[in-house]
Amino acid sequence: MITPLPHAPDDDLSLQRIAPMTGRAWRVGAGDVVRVADLEGSQVADVFLVDAGDLEDGLSNGRTFDYGGTLSLTVGARLYSSRSRLLATIVRDDVGAHDFLYAPCSQAMFESQYGVSEPHPNCYDNLTGALAEFGVPAATVTIPFNVFMCTSVGPDGRLTILPPRSRPGDVLELRAERDLLVAVSACSASVANGGGARPLGVGVRPSA
Amino acid sequence: MITPLPHAPDDDLSLQRIAPMTGRAWRVGAGDVVRVADLEGSQVADVFLVDAGDLEDGLSNGRTFDYGGTLSLTVGARLYSSRSRLLATIVRDDVGAHDFLYAPCSQAMFESQYGVSEPHPNCYDNLTGALAEFGVPAATVTIPFNVFMCTSVGPDGRLTILPPRSRPGDVLELRAERDLLVAVSACSASVANGGGARPLGVGVRPSA
Repeated sequence: MITPLPHAPDDDLSLQRIAPMTGRAWRVGAGDVVRVADLEGSQVADVFLVDAGDLEDGLSNGRTFDYGGTLSLTVGARLYSSRSRLLATIVRDDVGAHDFLYAPCSQAMFESQYGVSEPHPNCYDNLTGALAEFGVPAATVTIPFNVFMCTSVGPDGRLTILPPRSRPGDVLELRAERDLLVAVSACSASVANGGGARPLGVGVRPSA
Repeated sequence: MITPLPHAPDDDLSLQRIAPMTGRAWRVGAGDVVRVADLEGSQVADVFLVDAGDLEDGLSNGRTFDYGGTLSLTVGARLYSSRSRLLATIVRDDVGAHDFLYAPCSQAMFESQYGVSEPHPNCYDNLTGALAEFGVPAATVTIPFNVFMCTSVGPDGRLTILPPRSRPGDVLELRAERDLLVAVSACSASVANGGGARPLGVGVRPSA
C-alpha cells in the first residue's frame, strides 16, 4: 500500500505504510536515502541496518558512540556497524530526539516488564523476521536506532523514557553509505510511544 | 601464571594474571563469582559474557539498560543477554565507575582513531579469539562491560573518556547467574587507560 507523505507536497517521495506493530525490510543501494515518517505523531520507529555484503555485520551503538563521541544523533551523525563500517548518515531530522540505548522490545521484554503472558507483537521479532527474508541471521540484530524514541539520561545515569516529540508527518532520513538491508518496525511498546501504537511511512529516494 | 591478589590477605582467592593487551576466557558455573582485579591501577578490563548453553547469546548493553533503567552499573546491577537472559549480577565494586557504552577497541578503531597502520593488539580480537576456543562465533561479541572504564555523559549527550578511577588492587566481582563463558581483555587503548597498558588479575570463587 502506497500513501503520500501527509505534509510534504513539494516532495514526490511515496511512502509505504507500516501498519502499527509490524515491520518490513528493504534492500537499498549506496547513496539511496531512506525516509522514515511518523504519519500520526508520537510513534517510535526501530530501525536496524545490515551490511548487504556481510549479513553478520549490523548496526552498533557502541561503535557509533565511540566514533561520534555523543549519544545525541541528528543531522550529520554517522551510523557504524560492529565491524566499523560506515553504514549510513542522518541527512534530515525534523525532531532531534532519538534513542540508541534501548534494545528492541521483545516477547521476553513484554513478559518481564509489562506482565503479558500471551504472544505480543514486538520489534525484535518484526526486525528479525523481516531481515530473515534476506538471509540475515537473527543474532545479527542487536540494538536498533530507535527513531523518535525520546530517552533522557540523568546526571546519575538514570534513564527516563519520555513521549516522542514527533508530530504527524515528521521525518528522519538516512543516506545509505553502502549497500544495505534496512528494517523498520513500528514499535509496539506503549511506554516508548506515549501510550499508543501507530503506523509509520517508509520510502526510498534513489541516489541521483 | 598464578599471582595472589596484592592487597587482600584475608582472601585466599588466587588470580590468574592477564598480561597487558591480552585476553583470556573461562567457563564458569552458575553461582560462581568472577573477580576482576586491577593489579596496578588505571587499567580497563573489557568483559564479555556468553550463555554457555546458547553460544549466539551474549551480553547486551541495551537489555541491561532497559531492565535496570540506568547507565550506572554497580553492586546489585544485573547484566542481561540479547535474548533477555540474566547472565550475572555485580556483587562487589571497589570503584563505582564503569562503561557499557563503548564498543571494544579493534584493529579498525586503532586505524581510524589513532592512525596506526600496523597490526595492533586490541580487545575485539582478544575477546573473540579467547571465546573462539569455546566455539563462540565472533559475531556474538558486541559491546563488552568495560570494567573500570570511566566515561561521562554531558547534558547534551556528549561523551568524554576520563582516566579510570581504579587504584592498585581494586576489584569488581560478578556472580554468574547461569553457566557462562567469561572473556576478559586487558584493554590496549591508551585513551581509556589514562595513558598506559597494564595487566589484570582474574579469579573465580566457586559457588558454596
